[in-house]
Amino acid sequence: MTLRVGIVGISGFGGGEALRLVAGHPSFELVYAAGEGSAGSLLVDRFPGVPARLAGLVIEKWDPAKLPQLDLLFASLPTGRSAEALARIPKAVKIVDIGGDHRYAEGWAYGLADVWPDRIAGHARIANPGCFPAAVLTTLAPLLANRLIEPGNIIIDAKTGISGAGRGGADSRFGFAESNENLQPYGLLQHVHMPEMAKTIERLSGGSAAGLVFTPHLVPMTRGVLVTIYCRGSATTEQCLDTARRFYAGRAFVRVTDRPPQTKWATGSNLSFVSYAADPERKLVIAMGVVDNLGKGAAGQAVQNANLICGLPETAGLDGLPVWP
Amino acid sequence: MTLRVGIVGISGFGGGEALRLVAGHPSFELVYAAGEGSAGSLLVDRFPGVPARLAGLVIEKWDPAKLPQLDLLFASLPTGRSAEALARIPKAVKIVDIGGDHRYAEGWAYGLADVWPDRIAGHARIANPGCFPAAVLTTLAPLLANRLIEPGNIIIDAKTGISGAGRGGADSRFGFAESNENLQPYGLLQHVHMPEMAKTIERLSGGSAAGLVFTPHLVPMTRGVLVTIYCRGSATTEQCLDTARRFYAGRAFVRVTDRPPQTKWATGSNLSFVSYAADPERKLVIAMGVVDNLGKGAAGQAVQNANLICGLPETAGLDGLPVWP
Amino acid sequence: MTLRVGIVGISGFGGGEALRLVAGHPSFELVYAAGEGSAGSLLVDRFPGVPARLAGLVIEKWDPAKLPQLDLLFASLPTGRSAEALARIPKAVKIVDIGGDHRYAEGWAYGLADVWPDRIAGHARIANPGCFPAAVLTTLAPLLANRLIEPGNIIIDAKTGISGAGRGGADSRFGFAESNENLQPYGLLQHVHMPEMAKTIERLSGGSAAGLVFTPHLVPMTRGVLVTIYCRGSATTEQCLDTARRFYAGRAFVRVTDRPPQTKWATGSNLSFVSYAADPERKLVIAMGVVDNLGKGAAGQAVQNANLICGLPETAGLDGLPVWP
Amino acid sequence: MTLRVGIVGISGFGGGEALRLVAGHPSFELVYAAGEGSAGSLLVDRFPGVPARLAGLVIEKWDPAKLPQLDLLFASLPTGRSAEALARIPKAVKIVDIGGDHRYAEGWAYGLADVWPDRIAGHARIANPGCFPAAVLTTLAPLLANRLIEPGNIIIDAKTGISGAGRGGADSRFGFAESNENLQPYGLLQHVHMPEMAKTIERLSGGSAAGLVFTPHLVPMTRGVLVTIYCRGSATTEQCLDTARRFYAGRAFVRVTDRPPQTKWATGSNLSFVSYAADPERKLVIAMGVVDNLGKGAAGQAVQNANLICGLPETAGLDGLPVWP
Repeated sequence: MTLRVGIVGISGFGGGEALRLVAGHPSFELVYAAGEGSAGSLLVDRFPGVPARLAGLVIEKWDPAKLPQLDLLFASLPTGRSAEALARIPKAVKIVDIGGDHRYAEGWAYGLADVWPDRIAGHARIANPGCFPAAVLTTLAPLLANRLIEPGNIIIDAKTGISGAGRGGADSRFGFAESNENLQPYGLLQHVHMPEMAKTIERLSGGSAAGLVFTPHLVPMTRGVLVTIYCRGSATTEQCLDTARRFYAGRAFVRVTDRPPQTKWATGSNLSFVSYAADPERKLVIAMGVVDNLGKGAAGQAVQNANLICGLPETAGLDGLPVWP
Repeated sequence: MTLRVGIVGISGFGGGEALRLVAGHPSFELVYAAGEGSAGSLLVDRFPGVPARLAGLVIEKWDPAKLPQLDLLFASLPTGRSAEALARIPKAVKIVDIGGDHRYAEGWAYGLADVWPDRIAGHARIANPGCFPAAVLTTLAPLLANRLIEPGNIIIDAKTGISGAGRGGADSRFGFAESNENLQPYGLLQHVHMPEMAKTIERLSGGSAAGLVFTPHLVPMTRGVLVTIYCRGSATTEQCLDTARRFYAGRAFVRVTDRPPQTKWATGSNLSFVSYAADPERKLVIAMGVVDNLGKGAAGQAVQNANLICGLPETAGLDGLPVWP
Repeated sequence: MTLRVGIVGISGFGGGEALRLVAGHPSFELVYAAGEGSAGSLLVDRFPGVPARLAGLVIEKWDPAKLPQLDLLFASLPTGRSAEALARIPKAVKIVDIGGDHRYAEGWAYGLADVWPDRIAGHARIANPGCFPAAVLTTLAPLLANRLIEPGNIIIDAKTGISGAGRGGADSRFGFAESNENLQPYGLLQHVHMPEMAKTIERLSGGSAAGLVFTPHLVPMTRGVLVTIYCRGSATTEQCLDTARRFYAGRAFVRVTDRPPQTKWATGSNLSFVSYAADPERKLVIAMGVVDNLGKGAAGQAVQNANLICGLPETAGLDGLPVWP
Repeated sequence: MTLRVGIVGISGFGGGEALRLVAGHPSFELVYAAGEGSAGSLLVDRFPGVPARLAGLVIEKWDPAKLPQLDLLFASLPTGRSAEALARIPKAVKIVDIGGDHRYAEGWAYGLADVWPDRIAGHARIANPGCFPAAVLTTLAPLLANRLIEPGNIIIDAKTGISGAGRGGADSRFGFAESNENLQPYGLLQHVHMPEMAKTIERLSGGSAAGLVFTPHLVPMTRGVLVTIYCRGSATTEQCLDTARRFYAGRAFVRVTDRPPQTKWATGSNLSFVSYAADPERKLVIAMGVVDNLGKGAAGQAVQNANLICGLPETAGLDGLPVWP
């Protein structure tokens, strides 16, 4: 069975990664690509490495009323731009929204695929987690579900590569000369990803109120998210690691490691790496998580969600090893 | 049919990329890995992203007398270290030598896979081209074979990412702080890759003597080779491009582009990009070629050669799109 | 008045930066340079940009018994290597030890120059703060001295460029290919800089016990330290900023900024940037500090300390603007 | 004597570097700064490291009719924007134009300061060389003046850091994620710097026609230019080096080195490094030159020119060592 797949927002980094994964997927055929910046171009002009069978596809101007017949649509639109447009897509077309507009919206399942695959499988509308929430929630889920940390007292020091923030032409903060050799905190005490993290933490901890401090930083690298999370709890390092190993036993994409994880371990893959270091005397648990912001943090998890809702093997098209070095 | 595959030199960058490609190959099963720096470790300790089925493989100390039963061996040893050792491997084990010791050695076919696949298919011993030669020869082959440039007058200005030169612990020239924000020419008028380039150019041009100037540069990036080659010839830009398009018609991995190619187009893939800009009045042809030094420049071409000698589809395990950005 | 100055440890990054600052200092004349890796070389062979007057200086093998007549010595030796050697230097030679062996050692003043210049001025033996402590302590001093935060509950998430960790030839973790595009936590719950931070925090807070969590990270950039510090306290953002502005009023090298500071603001300079963001309802103060790890974090502060103990203007040789971009 | 100095174009990289050098110059006082992107801001808001005496300067909207009394103006405006505007500045104000509009324009001296300081000294209007020409011409001048190479047959393979091309907000080619780990040729056979190079080469070679091939490349680093130049000539390596050493004897800013120069040797300085490697049998001379594109390639040479026309020591404000690493 081959599914007819579309991607909207292909000019952005998330859409571009979706293209790479869709093109390599054994059950997907890309039949539609749309993007504002690149409408009218051939796919090969934007992505010189696409195979011959895709090279001549014309990137369309995005218009939800003019879709070809599709089984599945990946949407990767800027925040605020997808809610209205996607409402007009027929129900028969399954949608995974990589953008932020439908997270915890009515009728949309929150696609935290490694944590609750069963809550995703039956749905036709999936809101894909943001890149920071993907890292934070995968890392904290085992501890929260097993009440090893207090949900009301969580400090998240988050670091992302620059592709997690935006494209170069948009803002000189993202320019090479301006941001190379530069480490920048931003959006203190007000980041857009806070609500989805708080809601999910409350859900994972059985309803307890989440209390979060979240400080994102821009790191001079292209890809990668690392979150260093300071929690209150009395567990030992080994207890945390064991709990996580049990929680993710049999799951394909989460690796629990003794060593602190590094962003390059995940580059180009759908993997998450989590680790923990605790000091029970001080009631401190440091939880660390790594994802590729365009992999598990965007298009990788989107394909995983698509696999779940399309009845495909969860790992289809996602088994590539990370690219190193 | 699944082939039993080994990799020796897995601690190096070329060996690590071979691991990634072998693990993702539909007809290969990795059953043996050896490496000096990492002997005794589990594969997962060196490559935290390997799948569960490979995680527990123990990296062996390299000893050609103690191989398990293998169909195919990828060797990625330092120069000077593979000639004697590989001579002791039984003939039934096919070998692709990613290292430099067997290029134009007796009994070894030179594996310039995109240019002469037919000269490779029947062999059991393949010497894989170096990273610079892979880029240079793929770029020049159409011009040389069609006598559009003079083989005796070729100036190659070559640029490589630092993984093409060596690992960080070996030499402070490869340290991050020393080499970031630094562009370094090296090995002027004496580079180790000269002989294989000269011999192949002579072969491609029907025996005319090659005259090469070759200047390599270390660029502060991890992966990627770009060669900018200044040749004498009267062809126009369009003639060069058309000649290359005909030469590579139907070949899977070489892309002839109107625009000058960029290294990032190839990252993580086995693709080569070639382009040309000519000024017939000045009898000048500028030929440009891009490869990933660890892809087409090492492990990618090695897997392509293995596919050819094992009777597999040439693109098996090599159809992943480049990683961008 | 020109002082005769020596540098030992000139092969390292800290020693190299000391050279740059000493060469540009109006009252210093470099008459002696020693270094293990480079002994026997001319200074110009290691530092091709030195002016003609210094080019021919021969780098000596370090031997404390064979010093020329010196007024001032900068020592930048690996940890564990300076205690014994420096004990043999005559008292008439003033010493600023950039290395770690004398911090809070008897007979050595801890040179936190921007915070307590008066405790430095009369001494002949100065232990220069480490790069992380320089950033942390400068950032926290105003809050601690004014009791705006609790010294017993401080979480420091610290990020450093790779020159803060070591040279490339020493360790493949510091190699370009291994560490570019990689963000790595390290040394969890056990970093060598903890004692000097704890002692100074206790001193700054009038004797209250310090309780610190310290998590360093290696960032893929050459220079720069950013510390993001999570503290308990009821002050508002404005109260913190005002307190810091008053604390550092008239001081040349500390800039209190409304915006979160970025590492590139300090590159190549002796400046510190500090800022604060508070949420009094949650009793949270986020304190942020930026230094160049080789400037204020090493050689810059060392020259500032030397100025203080030699009776020179504090800013002599240190008034260069940061290098941007 | 302190000169009243202005800078127009302070929002750009060249203007920013001019600010750094002017602020550190013993005979300059910055009294005027103008820039389009930043008009209305305080200087400290754009350059957080400026000293207290400059922090409160308001960046003006550029209007040549509304200048304060100035002795000297540095202009760093986009191409096409300075010709008309600067024509309206009174003759008493000396001008160094870092932009491209006045190179070889009537009434403007071409400020190749290391090569012909005597042709600059008497003028009040200096056109500063472009960054590529600064590197190319400094490298070739000794060979051309001594007829060691043929001016009609010069191939220049030029590499620049991204600050040499433009700011991040302007073009996604300059974005971090797009250009990191990417090496890009651009502007083949048509670069804007060709005429000033050709004219100067003809002048240096006594009127012989220049024949140039020029291929620029964007390198993923912030600063630095390296030119690798392939020339025809029969000299030996030693003859080239000796000729250059004699040509630049006593000059402060050009270093002739045996080893191939690296861009990081010049970072943050006004230095040029030149070297040569020849193969007389093949009548080949490879000439290599390194500058910081914002130093000798822009603001550094501009200050050097200003020193020459203002009767100041040529090295005033320019004696800082390069920043390494």
